[in-house]
Amino acid sequence: MPSEPSAPSEPFPGSRPTLEAVAARAGVSRATASRVVRGGAGVREALAEKVRGAVAELGYVPNHAARTLVTRRTGAVAVIIAEPEVRIFSDPFFSRQIRGISRELSAHDTQLVLLLLDGPGDHDRLARYLAGGHADGALAFSLHTDDPIPAIIRRAGMPTVYGGRPAADPAAVRYVDADNRGGARAAVRYLRGLGRRRIAHIAGPLDQTSALDRLDGYREEQAPGADPALIAEGAFTVESGALAMAELLARCPGLDAVFAANDLMASGALRVLKEHGRTVPGDVALVGFDDMDAVAEVTDPPLTTVRQDVEGMGRLMARLLLRDLGRARPEQGGVRPEGDVRPEDGIRPEDGSAPASVITPTTLIRRASA
Amino acid sequence: MPSEPSAPSEPFPGSRPTLEAVAARAGVSRATASRVVRGGAGVREALAEKVRGAVAELGYVPNHAARTLVTRRTGAVAVIIAEPEVRIFSDPFFSRQIRGISRELSAHDTQLVLLLLDGPGDHDRLARYLAGGHADGALAFSLHTDDPIPAIIRRAGMPTVYGGRPAADPAAVRYVDADNRGGARAAVRYLRGLGRRRIAHIAGPLDQTSALDRLDGYREEQAPGADPALIAEGAFTVESGALAMAELLARCPGLDAVFAANDLMASGALRVLKEHGRTVPGDVALVGFDDMDAVAEVTDPPLTTVRQDVEGMGRLMARLLLRDLGRARPEQGGVRPEGDVRPEDGIRPEDGSAPASVITPTTLIRRASA
Repeated sequence: MPSEPSAPSEPFPGSRPTLEAVAARAGVSRATASRVVRGGAGVREALAEKVRGAVAELGYVPNHAARTLVTRRTGAVAVIIAEPEVRIFSDPFFSRQIRGISRELSAHDTQLVLLLLDGPGDHDRLARYLAGGHADGALAFSLHTDDPIPAIIRRAGMPTVYGGRPAADPAAVRYVDADNRGGARAAVRYLRGLGRRRIAHIAGPLDQTSALDRLDGYREEQAPGADPALIAEGAFTVESGALAMAELLARCPGLDAVFAANDLMASGALRVLKEHGRTVPGDVALVGFDDMDAVAEVTDPPLTTVRQDVEGMGRLMARLLLRDLGRARPEQGGVRPEGDVRPEDGIRPEDGSAPASVITPTTLIRRASA
Repeated sequence: MPSEPSAPSEPFPGSRPTLEAVAARAGVSRATASRVVRGGAGVREALAEKVRGAVAELGYVPNHAARTLVTRRTGAVAVIIAEPEVRIFSDPFFSRQIRGISRELSAHDTQLVLLLLDGPGDHDRLARYLAGGHADGALAFSLHTDDPIPAIIRRAGMPTVYGGRPAADPAAVRYVDADNRGGARAAVRYLRGLGRRRIAHIAGPLDQTSALDRLDGYREEQAPGADPALIAEGAFTVESGALAMAELLARCPGLDAVFAANDLMASGALRVLKEHGRTVPGDVALVGFDDMDAVAEVTDPPLTTVRQDVEGMGRLMARLLLRDLGRARPEQGGVRPEGDVRPEDGIRPEDGSAPASVITPTTLIRRASA
């Protein structure tokens, strides 16, 4: 495991006031001055006040802050997920992505700092924390249209890699994404190959590019003039998939296949299909997206789905960022874990405008539901 | 929502060198100096070097760092869970605890910073990050015997509240815990009241005080001379519960009840009991611990279990810490959400030595498994 390049503890010897000087100016012991500088526990307020005054007068900077000022290094990377904490812990997509990020950061001795948001009111606080210089770079994912997070990160001026293509100005940022459109096309082609002709789509939330791209892929493989009533929007959750399925069955009782934009929605759809007495795959063939083992392998029947390497994408996001931060050298490593995604595996975006962004391949995994 | 007490941007006017002075000393424009101080993007290395030299010579401290130095405030609280990230995302206990913490911190405009550890090798890195002053306080939970985390936090000198009683020197720290022993006693008394006499226990990992306390409670309610072969140790996971159950059935085929130290282990045990042709609760009555709805309500039959208010404990940990940090005023709020645990609801530790620690009550929830 490579160790962090060590920061010089006194980068410019003699140029900074010492703790001893602070203690002398304040008329306290070095130990008392140290306690105040380290937080003030157990020091009377009057003394602490004197020490803080001396710190300000002399321009004393404790070592750790000095190190940060000179090297601009905290050894930490912020991970920002633009979803409420309830979704982060209930959708295995997020834990997979975080697992990939965590493994890669840990292998490069970098602290993962997960910043949780409880709601849109929390953006100001996030901005303050990032501007405070508490991380060297950021990884942000699951953004929505008009998400304020890219602007907040831009103002904090930190190197960033996005997970999923941001909706606004994607050419200006770096991201790792799955081939969502290609995966969706493969799913629909597969269903058509099974002879299905009334293929419905449960889309993800259409304020996310992953959902839009999967919808585009679905549309591109549909026969011209396909019924727009075959499309219903969900929210990437089990319940929203169930609701969308009920809606689709009411509108288009003759549907013979469903492509759901993620596995959680597919599992909700499966439940509703059974409740309506439809057999899967007999009456209705069902395909999901993600290939989350905790979902796709445990449904009855198990889901045919479009696999994206979520953990590998997490690793890749982290690796691209670490390279920016000078914390990863490409020649290091050697052992390549199975399922590991590398930039050279990726498909470059067609316009070539964001050379460092990577689109990773998707694969259709055939199980019993279609 | 109360706003953070605003830090004075220039606490000692005139006492600090300005960015203009840095730019003049380095012979660059103010804009260039600013870019270097903010991270150096787009500035030639030779110029950046000059600016960094001037920063060091003059003792220049950017505003955000100055604010941190003077107020010692980052507006953030670190949450440290002494478990690998795989367990954090697979055991709903952790997401519940984090949910409680997140809600409370968010309501007090405080950023939750979740620090993930990928293994024991990560402790040095954690220590560096905490010592770097990137959070005002810490919440730490799921500690194990000989866990280095309390010492790391102590060295970082930050106010801390623990979730669960630390094994070493609990009187010296503050913690929020559930009445694990009382809950276990209630479970075993209930099973005895059903006429069960050969009551087995699947313990949690015995390097955690919660597991030890539940084992103690079990032992206290057992008949004197109860067979020690009725106890098997698990690891708070589904699989470990299944393994322990298989072991217990092999050793004590006549057992007529099982008290498992958490719901995940109880669900694993339930699967193995069925595989061995035992009916629940007919042949074997089964009681869990936690009352995680995602587990206890979905097993077949649903689990009778000992409820602890995990989300409430998370809120309470956060509230105690916020009070230390001067970010929460007890008189605020007014509305008391259902299930909210408060210090005054708690049972004081018997020795009275850690006045701020709180033990919250547990409740037996009767469902179909016993």
